[in-house]
Amino acid sequence: MTASLLLRDVRPFGAAATDILIENSRIARIAPAIAAPGVAVEEGRGEIVVPGLVEAHTHLDKNLLGLPWYVNEVGPNLLDKIDNERMNKKRLDIEPARQSARQAVRASVFGATHIRSHVDVDTEHGLWGIEGVMATRDAWRDIVDIELVAFPQSGLLRRPGTLEVMDAAMKAGCEVVGGLDPCGIDRDPKGHLDAIFGLCQRYGKPLDIHLHEPGEMGAFSLDLIIERTRALGMKGKVAISHAFCLGTPDPALVDPLIEQVAALDIAIVTTAPASRPVPAVKRMLAAGIRIAAGSDGIRDTWNPYGNGDMLERAVLVGLRNNLRRDDEVRLALDTCTVEGAKLMEVADYGLAEGCAADLLILPGETLAEAVVNRSPNRRVLKRGRIVARDGVPLRPAT
Amino acid sequence: MTASLLLRDVRPFGAAATDILIENSRIARIAPAIAAPGVAVEEGRGEIVVPGLVEAHTHLDKNLLGLPWYVNEVGPNLLDKIDNERMNKKRLDIEPARQSARQAVRASVFGATHIRSHVDVDTEHGLWGIEGVMATRDAWRDIVDIELVAFPQSGLLRRPGTLEVMDAAMKAGCEVVGGLDPCGIDRDPKGHLDAIFGLCQRYGKPLDIHLHEPGEMGAFSLDLIIERTRALGMKGKVAISHAFCLGTPDPALVDPLIEQVAALDIAIVTTAPASRPVPAVKRMLAAGIRIAAGSDGIRDTWNPYGNGDMLERAVLVGLRNNLRRDDEVRLALDTCTVEGAKLMEVADYGLAEGCAADLLILPGETLAEAVVNRSPNRRVLKRGRIVARDGVPLRPAT
Ligand SMILES: [Zn+2]
Ligand SMILES: [Zn+2]
Repeated sequence: MTASLLLRDVRPFGAAATDILIENSRIARIAPAIAAPGVAVEEGRGEIVVPGLVEAHTHLDKNLLGLPWYVNEVGPNLLDKIDNERMNKKRLDIEPARQSARQAVRASVFGATHIRSHVDVDTEHGLWGIEGVMATRDAWRDIVDIELVAFPQSGLLRRPGTLEVMDAAMKAGCEVVGGLDPCGIDRDPKGHLDAIFGLCQRYGKPLDIHLHEPGEMGAFSLDLIIERTRALGMKGKVAISHAFCLGTPDPALVDPLIEQVAALDIAIVTTAPASRPVPAVKRMLAAGIRIAAGSDGIRDTWNPYGNGDMLERAVLVGLRNNLRRDDEVRLALDTCTVEGAKLMEVADYGLAEGCAADLLILPGETLAEAVVNRSPNRRVLKRGRIVARDGVPLRPAT
Repeated sequence: MTASLLLRDVRPFGAAATDILIENSRIARIAPAIAAPGVAVEEGRGEIVVPGLVEAHTHLDKNLLGLPWYVNEVGPNLLDKIDNERMNKKRLDIEPARQSARQAVRASVFGATHIRSHVDVDTEHGLWGIEGVMATRDAWRDIVDIELVAFPQSGLLRRPGTLEVMDAAMKAGCEVVGGLDPCGIDRDPKGHLDAIFGLCQRYGKPLDIHLHEPGEMGAFSLDLIIERTRALGMKGKVAISHAFCLGTPDPALVDPLIEQVAALDIAIVTTAPASRPVPAVKRMLAAGIRIAAGSDGIRDTWNPYGNGDMLERAVLVGLRNNLRRDDEVRLALDTCTVEGAKLMEVADYGLAEGCAADLLILPGETLAEAVVNRSPNRRVLKRGRIVARDGVPLRPAT
């Protein structure tokens, strides 16, 4: 059982200062001037407190953190990047257990308390990635909750045998079934979608599919996903990562899709890339659609950018969606907090009595300032214990 | 005269380690193992050295650095932001001399050695902004070179009397004539452009015009600018900031414009915004067009984002233009270094013998890593003297 802790003088979401009493890893009470004799005190110094950041889409298994710099000379197409990565993973010593631990600790230091990670599954590496990330999930359970998506990065049907490895990944305990561009990569949308929805049915698990396909092609794939979500009674259990097609500047194409996505409570996950069309955050929220944010791959063979900081992601979401007003900056932060928690169905998430004490404390005059400043001086709590301070993990890093 | 300095063990652009001897504020020699008895030595520790960063488009006069947080509740249109700012500038105590000094020092600490600042000129505030930024330019001359663009932020013809203040600003010594959306704001493209080109002619100064106008409207304005650039013999003396119209996904509209922009050596300045169309960096460079980058306004009444770090801007340029390969990341950095220097016509800029010793030293295994890492541990030299170290300005900050 975690010891009790009194957070004194903190401002929830930048509101008036109050105290937060933590007991049994949960928020027991939020009130000004709580008297709790004998309980350890953490002075908030008037800083802002928000629920822990949620990294809703990353790839813990294949970053290059701590490895020699990878000189990227990869071709421009999606398949160039996919094949280059698969063929070089062993040569570059991208060991999933070690690399996922490095990224998880870094994410925690930045304030993440929950991570959904897609993890590569293919016929060359089998469950190497899954087992590695599961090892990290277990070893670092006290600083961050990690959820695994079995992800057929190299395609499912175009590489026979992959479906069997996906099945084994689900059997091994992955929480979510993944998928990828049923037209663009597998070139067999019916076959791909029937296979992954079949896994969902067999294991009673939700789906989170990468859908980069643009415009009409993506709309077609999304329509097939909608059809299956409805037919199989999977309302609320399907997520689309990227969903670039929903950023197509053609209301005649997009509006009917958004209506159905909302009706079936399909969640959207965005990285808010600056160079691609994207589903608009305010539009999705107005339609009642959950829209979470993620870093996607950071510092990997695909792309040198990204540091895993979900506050920086909130800024990128804000810039991509032109969210300038203070109330809009709050929406950008929501995609990196509460919306991610909805995606991951975290039952006890939030800043209310009874919620898990998964918290981030950071300086700022207002919530918007705290977001845009991205101060390195953060305190992170997981289940009521302080797990990072000013960029320093309080358990030794790997 | 500045004392000599030997930079030992630095890697120009990430290449092999060498030494750099600085004499009389200039790079006197670049060679391995320079012997310079009696000369002060700065140990480079194998870090990377690049020429100083160039902030090619900002608004030094109206940031809110160090002021209470401004809660942004401003409307969505350009005119909402323009009028809101003008009407609240005095009330919010946005004193141009003080605020520009704050931003200039911050930019220097991040590694900027040259800044082009647009400065508001209007009938309500007269030369308040111009005089303030000139005071900063003079007071901080030894850490950064500042160039002023007289900028009619509130419109020129729609507010009678503004042209006269613009004239006074040029007389006061502004280096560049500014302008703004001749259709969208002044609603009189011929009148606006004839007026600002007239100032260029009268004072023999170049032009840098804000052109946010999208699609066909922007293309029309750009066409009028091209016409005047050619007719007035101003080849190489005109810059278009933003130029969103050149990001229109319509080659039939854009290609002929690019051809003429290149032929007249018109420069483009971009902030690489994620939420708007933009001229593509690689396309511009391939056409031989100078394309520099800037922060635009940081933390002001328009927008809460931005910290003035031109390395972060390089990352945003990279993300916006999908520059992933190491050679492409170098292009992103170029927009924040050499391309900006070309815009500002800095004669002695670069990392070669004879150039001014305006340099940035920062850690990184490769140049691309140094860019994406944006380490706070930077050393900045202006005219051969170290002016900032690890985020600390070596002259007291204002
Ligand atoms: Zn992904
Ligand atoms: Zn501007």
